[in-house]
Amino acid sequence: MFVAIKEQHKGVDVCINNAGLSHPEPLLSGKTSAWKNIMDVNVLALSICTREAYQSMKERNVDDGHIININSLCGHKVIPFADFHLYTATKYAVTALTEGLRQELRAEKTHIRATSISPGLVATEFISRASSKNPDEVAAFYATTKSLKTKDIASTVTYILSTSPHVQIGELLVEPI
Amino acid sequence: MFVAIKEQHKGVDVCINNAGLSHPEPLLSGKTSAWKNIMDVNVLALSICTREAYQSMKERNVDDGHIININSLCGHKVIPFADFHLYTATKYAVTALTEGLRQELRAEKTHIRATSISPGLVATEFISRASSKNPDEVAAFYATTKSLKTKDIASTVTYILSTSPHVQIGELLVEPI
Amino acid sequence: MFVAIKEQHKGVDVCINNAGLSHPEPLLSGKTSAWKNIMDVNVLALSICTREAYQSMKERNVDDGHIININSLCGHKVIPFADFHLYTATKYAVTALTEGLRQELRAEKTHIRATSISPGLVATEFISRASSKNPDEVAAFYATTKSLKTKDIASTVTYILSTSPHVQIGELLVEPI
Amino acid sequence: MFVAIKEQHKGVDVCINNAGLSHPEPLLSGKTSAWKNIMDVNVLALSICTREAYQSMKERNVDDGHIININSLCGHKVIPFADFHLYTATKYAVTALTEGLRQELRAEKTHIRATSISPGLVATEFISRASSKNPDEVAAFYATTKSLKTKDIASTVTYILSTSPHVQIGELLVEPI
Repeated sequence: MFVAIKEQHKGVDVCINNAGLSHPEPLLSGKTSAWKNIMDVNVLALSICTREAYQSMKERNVDDGHIININSLCGHKVIPFADFHLYTATKYAVTALTEGLRQELRAEKTHIRATSISPGLVATEFISRASSKNPDEVAAFYATTKSLKTKDIASTVTYILSTSPHVQIGELLVEPI
Repeated sequence: MFVAIKEQHKGVDVCINNAGLSHPEPLLSGKTSAWKNIMDVNVLALSICTREAYQSMKERNVDDGHIININSLCGHKVIPFADFHLYTATKYAVTALTEGLRQELRAEKTHIRATSISPGLVATEFISRASSKNPDEVAAFYATTKSLKTKDIASTVTYILSTSPHVQIGELLVEPI
Repeated sequence: MFVAIKEQHKGVDVCINNAGLSHPEPLLSGKTSAWKNIMDVNVLALSICTREAYQSMKERNVDDGHIININSLCGHKVIPFADFHLYTATKYAVTALTEGLRQELRAEKTHIRATSISPGLVATEFISRASSKNPDEVAAFYATTKSLKTKDIASTVTYILSTSPHVQIGELLVEPI
Repeated sequence: MFVAIKEQHKGVDVCINNAGLSHPEPLLSGKTSAWKNIMDVNVLALSICTREAYQSMKERNVDDGHIININSLCGHKVIPFADFHLYTATKYAVTALTEGLRQELRAEKTHIRATSISPGLVATEFISRASSKNPDEVAAFYATTKSLKTKDIASTVTYILSTSPHVQIGELLVEPI
């Protein structure tokens, strides 16, 4: 992916790590393969993209880049749903990765910014994959539960990118009301 | 491993997830394979052992079991050493896994206890593997840096196991002074 | 103050708890009266203003109000400066108060929003009061230390107030880079 | 109190800050005087006792003293009971004060230890004061709710005091199961 980006666009200036998923596999009984898949996507792929984006910025002397991790409220507290416990562990990891990234960028004396956005429930296909509900149940769930829209998160990203270069929003928690 | 335990000892009553490692691979430049190895040992293996230990307790109706995760101070704050940032992310995951486990055990109405012990630096072979220091440098490091001894952690484990059955120590942070 | 607001403007729709101070009084040796003053301003006055603002919204059936607490990065981690330790304790309290407020507003079935903004260092008269530095030292401090400007925080507040009514930014951490 | 201790026992070697209370006064409607009382006891008195205990150790060159703050699970997460929200804010403050104290003791190059013990519900007169329940309701509450006993906490304190001098248990969370 990063090779294609280099050929077509020269490199990466802004990296938004948005991919994330869960499977309904509790800690007491879940399948190892499902857990591994959650970790691969939520932690490992995010870490690889972050490293590649940084290396792309570095080789082109980009000093005003921005790496944004789409984290989750689950990155900050453990909600009482067993189906999400392994997912929650990967989001705790993302909280630590964003802070670690910020420290490494500072140590390299760059002005590249790192931000974690931690939304509550957003209406996407996430729930249909992450839970064992059927489509009707998912529809009923969204009909009765408050959720953010993807455009709410997009607008948050736009705001964060638009702030003055010396302003680093490190963490933003956002939930539906 | 759990098959052998079953044959020789019938099953598991107490599971202490002590294995954990790190490699000196920062977030901006680290090797994917090293990161994967850290995640496999610190998160996936711990989760598998936890599940197998619980299933072993469940099939023998053991209601006073105990699962202890040897976490780290790094499971609670991000220290400014790039070499440890991926490790730190896995330990944040362990913090969430222990809390999630406690919730699931409660939901199952068991009295099995779950504890996270989070030590600061302990004098083991951890540092020689986790850093790029040579043996002399590691020796010099331990000569000038305060550290806990493995027996300090062992004595903490003994204490936690010895508390009354209705007392659950959820988290214990311990550091050298 | 709230009586005057009622007479002149009918009531409060948006409350921004911005007042906050510190005195250079460490935990091992500080003066009780200085500690009390920090607690009165940072915790008690904020709590009183929050309650009065809510009561003002309630009696006029204002359901889209907003209460914003200007917290601090010190509300989330303890920085190694003894002069700020009591201040830090009051900001940890503000973190809890904002979350508690959010829960109470939800329980009352209002759509009033509660937000904590936690900035790093902002260039105000805060440092000259909070530390034992003289004016020249304070000037030298700001010349060599990165800081946010008050207008950066103002612009953050404007953004938070401008989000869609169903979007609640619960916490925003922002620091200079 | 510290004068009397000095006269009768020469000074303080171990200080256990156990006093703490709450009143059923939510953030949206509570009485200022009740809030002030909670803050005075839980934060200010604890800080004064800590300072006096340290000064007593210092003037007698006691280097193996111990200051233990009886915190609460509420010092780490905001539980959904409005009656406890101001109390929770003071316990968040205690979490920060214990960490700040540890940093100051380290900066002074002492080996005096600082520990926070954070229990869940303990069966004391706390609930009868902290809630608006009458005695019968309190009795019914304890009959149906799991709680720790005061001797469980006492035994935790004993353990912490008995650890090797170079072992500092910084935080211990304990709850009934």
